[in-house]
Amino acid sequence: MSTSLLAPHRSIRAFQATPVPEETVQAVLAEAQRAPTDATAQMYSLIRVRDRELRLAISRACGGLPPVEAAPEFFVVCADLARLAALLSLSGKPLGRFPAIGLHFATVDATLVAQRLMDAAEAAGLGVCPIGALVNGIEALPQLLGLPPLVVPAFGICMGFPAEDPPLRPRLPLSLVVHENRYRTPQPEELQQACQQMNPITRSGNWLAVLERYFAPAGIMEQRETPFRATLARQQLASS
Amino acid sequence: MSTSLLAPHRSIRAFQATPVPEETVQAVLAEAQRAPTDATAQMYSLIRVRDRELRLAISRACGGLPPVEAAPEFFVVCADLARLAALLSLSGKPLGRFPAIGLHFATVDATLVAQRLMDAAEAAGLGVCPIGALVNGIEALPQLLGLPPLVVPAFGICMGFPAEDPPLRPRLPLSLVVHENRYRTPQPEELQQACQQMNPITRSGNWLAVLERYFAPAGIMEQRETPFRATLARQQLASS
Repeated sequence: MSTSLLAPHRSIRAFQATPVPEETVQAVLAEAQRAPTDATAQMYSLIRVRDRELRLAISRACGGLPPVEAAPEFFVVCADLARLAALLSLSGKPLGRFPAIGLHFATVDATLVAQRLMDAAEAAGLGVCPIGALVNGIEALPQLLGLPPLVVPAFGICMGFPAEDPPLRPRLPLSLVVHENRYRTPQPEELQQACQQMNPITRSGNWLAVLERYFAPAGIMEQRETPFRATLARQQLASS
Repeated sequence: MSTSLLAPHRSIRAFQATPVPEETVQAVLAEAQRAPTDATAQMYSLIRVRDRELRLAISRACGGLPPVEAAPEFFVVCADLARLAALLSLSGKPLGRFPAIGLHFATVDATLVAQRLMDAAEAAGLGVCPIGALVNGIEALPQLLGLPPLVVPAFGICMGFPAEDPPLRPRLPLSLVVHENRYRTPQPEELQQACQQMNPITRSGNWLAVLERYFAPAGIMEQRETPFRATLARQQLASS
């Protein structure tokens, strides 16, 4: 199966110290910005964190993120309804009350831009690594980054010239993630085979153990739930 | 500014009747699947809707979406925690309780795949159009698509060979969406200038009027809020 339509993606966590030329950064950002956006509203912001002390503070707030400390470029991808509210105020209108749908559309807008940023960066010969673990420090980030209400961090992106050349990592069988007309629930034996296919993604060779660590009761995701919701509430994006 | 790292994006809403060759569809899907995913979990599903009656039913449920009815290919992009729950059950574990963070990570995973799908499709000479208005029919979609609990539609993507060649549409000044180190709140005069720049995106030439229609009180987003939250609750992805 040819997959040569885009530069091959694998997350890069080790970067050369060489800075990314500013014109390359600007070209990547210009591409990112062309991502589609719902209702023309562009409900996102990217915080380009260049200050090294601030990088360290972010890393510490998240429990230690070495690529965030070391990468030549680091962006915090934010869902942003604040700029939209400011635009509406030009014509004397307030923002309506739609916290769940607002967070949905802003998270989608931000993620569309982020993936286009990563596709463009890889096309330019750069390596990237999205940082989902940024949510570990979500309660500290609004103050560290000066985020006003209606802005919330979604994840981070590290970018730079790769200092490693890892192989492509496995994915689930396409037949489990693409459905025709109706959702198809997989059989247990298909899931077992999928685990075999996914096992090499982790050093232990036991993918299910990784999933348990993140997603089972008392796992990493449960630990993230309360601070995430508290931050949504503080940033005025909570549903209740 | 050169923006030639990726094929130029503009949403295509009119498609040639020519089908997309199956090998092209599969190549685009294989590229999409290579998008990064948090914690290796791939919390998304794509429903490829080929059945024309089902397309019509979806379009009607959303208040009429002509590209969904006519496009050679149409995908419903879903946030999906159901497959993850099924995988955990292989080792006898339940899914933890983290509805807000679960919806966050699954929406991000789904959107990363969707944007990579669109970038790959455009690289293959196809046109795409994301369909945010799919949420207009969100209450009907789980039954129409047979979605189990823990799966919720995020948006749609139409794809095919373009039958139109629209110009690139404007975007906000980059200085308003990219911040350095700390979030910078724009001055009113910058927002006024931004509106001037954005006005050509709409036929009326009045971008603020579009934003009001969607985002002001009693606008489209407020109308979407209650059905969206009801669907999250029914699909067991609501926070409260």
